[in-house]
Amino acid sequence: MKIGFHNEIENKTVDIEGAVGVKIRWLIGHSDKNAPFHMRYFEVEPLGNTPLHTHNGEHEVYILEGNGVLNNGEKTFPLKSGSFVLVEKGEKHQFKNLSDKEYLKFLCIIPVESSR
Amino acid sequence: MKIGFHNEIENKTVDIEGAVGVKIRWLIGHSDKNAPFHMRYFEVEPLGNTPLHTHNGEHEVYILEGNGVLNNGEKTFPLKSGSFVLVEKGEKHQFKNLSDKEYLKFLCIIPVESSR
Repeated sequence: MKIGFHNEIENKTVDIEGAVGVKIRWLIGHSDKNAPFHMRYFEVEPLGNTPLHTHNGEHEVYILEGNGVLNNGEKTFPLKSGSFVLVEKGEKHQFKNLSDKEYLKFLCIIPVESSR
Repeated sequence: MKIGFHNEIENKTVDIEGAVGVKIRWLIGHSDKNAPFHMRYFEVEPLGNTPLHTHNGEHEVYILEGNGVLNNGEKTFPLKSGSFVLVEKGEKHQFKNLSDKEYLKFLCIIPVESSR
């Protein structure tokens, strides 16, 4: 069993091309050998965004705080606290913070085999 | 892709023996054929609790709101908004709401193969 608190986990800058003002905390990750999937905590600064990209693994996302959109490359869909998303393999996705004041915060859970 | 809002999902009473005042929303579940794991949203009423039990699947839990404890059958560990837990296979666990006023709310993500 592992019990922790999100703010105790290192907050790393996401330096993937296209990421603007994005930080990640690996709440449950590679050091947790018996974890069947990994839980990451994201913060996107005001008007920031994750990259518009695709990959060979699913995302399950839950929005904790803020106001933003999910961009699938063609349309945008509103997101707020309590929204959830299943992004399937290969689907284009980008999370954008629409607020110029507040952070957009969300959990993103991914399969171990596509985790890096 | 599936995008939804937690309050739009049916809120079902958990009628497992030992559960007191527990409701569940399956945000991502069996109807989502391409989901590699299932995301459930739990509400535990004031002074309520989930059963003290074990099972053959992991839990990854994130506390959204409230004040409670995780009971592992021997000790209790405090939980509040921002706490997270990895419960490994076969580990005893129970979530208890300590508040007599507020709900304890959390996400619990489980592998599809142990999902029911």
